[in-house]
Amino acid sequence: MSLLPNSTTGDIVVLVGHPSTGSRTGAVGRAVAAQLGDEPGHSLRVVELAELGTGPLGEDGVAVQEAEELVRGAGLLVVATPVFKAGYPGILKLFLDRLEPTALEPVVAVPVILTASSAHGALADLQLRVVLQAVGALLPVPSFVLEEHHLDDLPQYVDAWQGRFGTAARAVVRALDAERVSAR
Amino acid sequence: MSLLPNSTTGDIVVLVGHPSTGSRTGAVGRAVAAQLGDEPGHSLRVVELAELGTGPLGEDGVAVQEAEELVRGAGLLVVATPVFKAGYPGILKLFLDRLEPTALEPVVAVPVILTASSAHGALADLQLRVVLQAVGALLPVPSFVLEEHHLDDLPQYVDAWQGRFGTAARAVVRALDAERVSAR
Amino acid sequence: MSLLPNSTTGDIVVLVGHPSTGSRTGAVGRAVAAQLGDEPGHSLRVVELAELGTGPLGEDGVAVQEAEELVRGAGLLVVATPVFKAGYPGILKLFLDRLEPTALEPVVAVPVILTASSAHGALADLQLRVVLQAVGALLPVPSFVLEEHHLDDLPQYVDAWQGRFGTAARAVVRALDAERVSAR
Amino acid sequence: MSLLPNSTTGDIVVLVGHPSTGSRTGAVGRAVAAQLGDEPGHSLRVVELAELGTGPLGEDGVAVQEAEELVRGAGLLVVATPVFKAGYPGILKLFLDRLEPTALEPVVAVPVILTASSAHGALADLQLRVVLQAVGALLPVPSFVLEEHHLDDLPQYVDAWQGRFGTAARAVVRALDAERVSAR
Repeated sequence: MSLLPNSTTGDIVVLVGHPSTGSRTGAVGRAVAAQLGDEPGHSLRVVELAELGTGPLGEDGVAVQEAEELVRGAGLLVVATPVFKAGYPGILKLFLDRLEPTALEPVVAVPVILTASSAHGALADLQLRVVLQAVGALLPVPSFVLEEHHLDDLPQYVDAWQGRFGTAARAVVRALDAERVSAR
Repeated sequence: MSLLPNSTTGDIVVLVGHPSTGSRTGAVGRAVAAQLGDEPGHSLRVVELAELGTGPLGEDGVAVQEAEELVRGAGLLVVATPVFKAGYPGILKLFLDRLEPTALEPVVAVPVILTASSAHGALADLQLRVVLQAVGALLPVPSFVLEEHHLDDLPQYVDAWQGRFGTAARAVVRALDAERVSAR
Repeated sequence: MSLLPNSTTGDIVVLVGHPSTGSRTGAVGRAVAAQLGDEPGHSLRVVELAELGTGPLGEDGVAVQEAEELVRGAGLLVVATPVFKAGYPGILKLFLDRLEPTALEPVVAVPVILTASSAHGALADLQLRVVLQAVGALLPVPSFVLEEHHLDDLPQYVDAWQGRFGTAARAVVRALDAERVSAR
Repeated sequence: MSLLPNSTTGDIVVLVGHPSTGSRTGAVGRAVAAQLGDEPGHSLRVVELAELGTGPLGEDGVAVQEAEELVRGAGLLVVATPVFKAGYPGILKLFLDRLEPTALEPVVAVPVILTASSAHGALADLQLRVVLQAVGALLPVPSFVLEEHHLDDLPQYVDAWQGRFGTAARAVVRALDAERVSAR
């Protein structure tokens, strides 16, 4: 599976940490990411961890390596996750465990969490942010945490979140990008 | 005093959440568990998640089901884990994700954490306790958190922890066991 | 103000960490504590931090010292708190800041949290447990966390929590008490 | 480049959450803040909670109100705190408890934590960020957490932190400021 030929640094990548494909979690992640791009029609690149084959993530299959490269090269990484047992799923941690502590240093990450319980959502959010920071990601804005019973009103929730945090998120992406360019 | 005579339910089980077999983490878990049993020679049952075959844990291979039954039936469950990226490994969460929210309701759990960084150990501990509680486990005492550079003095650290918390941990195991017996 | 003349070690003490007296938080704390006692009519001792005078807690007024002695000598300490800004109130931390890291080593603590938001309640719970553990308290059971809109059904919620955790909490209190007696 | 010319709104404010004046915590906070300003000689405004009089913070003395206004109007707020009992001090929470949930919505906050224990520092950091977010502050970069035994090398630690996170922090301050200006 070829994920992202001709990938450039700085794309928006949605990492879907759900063990099943076609999840509502992935749809929410894409909805948030679509609004975070500056330009209309900005294409998103999506990594569905559930599609990375039947082997464990720990095995270095080609698909996993490609996914990892995509995530490392993201300008903005939306990490979309459901909540299992007051945390994010094991499949997502399995993927993050592959990364060294500085792997995501140039990456701005925005967690997107879909949860049935607002208490468990808050706890999962806390955990995911700790771990993303431990692989070097910068998390400049609060996560987008949505309770499942609000799914029908997803666009309004995304708009409200963007209205408050979109400017800050984009400002950091641009500033880090400019820093990278000037460092070359 | 016999903690759990003639009972498969109620044994001490060590769940080793390390992706490799033969880990120091597993050895530390066994050392803590050995002292938590009342009787000399009390046999421990050990589940090494790394030994559960090459398939992902999500697949219902026989080994995984057996491991799950053992964990559900434990009187005292020592959950031994290293720290990866300021959290516990994905392989451990993958296993816990299989359990329903009440799966470990009769189980007393004691996390055992081996870490290179005391800050990351504290954060991983917080996360593991949240998730174990979300599958119903009771965590009556603080986790045994050991920094790797103290491994040579493991026995003294285990003794000190036991001296402070062993009584409480055993009291809860016995009280819950008595409650189970009287409920039959 | 004489708080507790003739206090014996091992009493149930309710520490109410609300800046106002007569709070619903205090009432919930008393309701949980009343059921945790073994004997009918077991008297509770209540420390209302809001009653400790107009000076800051940091000043060593007599009332504060008495309150501190009561808390240190508790067999079971119910720490009742509202949730302010996703945490427990400053007045409660001000009181805990007075204690040395081993101050509550012989004390079994049960947090009781009344919250408008279940997400903020979960986060405040996490924080309070971290800090209580840092002053030596043992927290053998999950906190009693109640959302305000369930206040009318308080008795049922207390019963359900007691049914699941009362045995374990009391077992630890008794075991530690026995340990203290045998250590004399 | 001028971060915030001719503006009381938008200044860099250091909020020192230590119960004593003249703390090393305050000095560390000032050192971090001094580098976050763009211009040499950019003046910092410092709020020492320990200086707000002898009454409890809950009383609306003039000094407390002035401090609150300064914090609300900050463009960049450095919140400097020691670690007491694995958390930040009660005096700091007492101050934050006064604020409504949206009080700091236009404010970029950077926690600065001085700790004897790296584990307790990590836990206090987690708690402080949760609470600052609950009063509306934006926390775009990881906190500056310093262990006390590194105090002699403070400048190098500040430089390293600035090198990694200064660009992002300033980018968010400027973007939010521009947004405010265009909203007028």
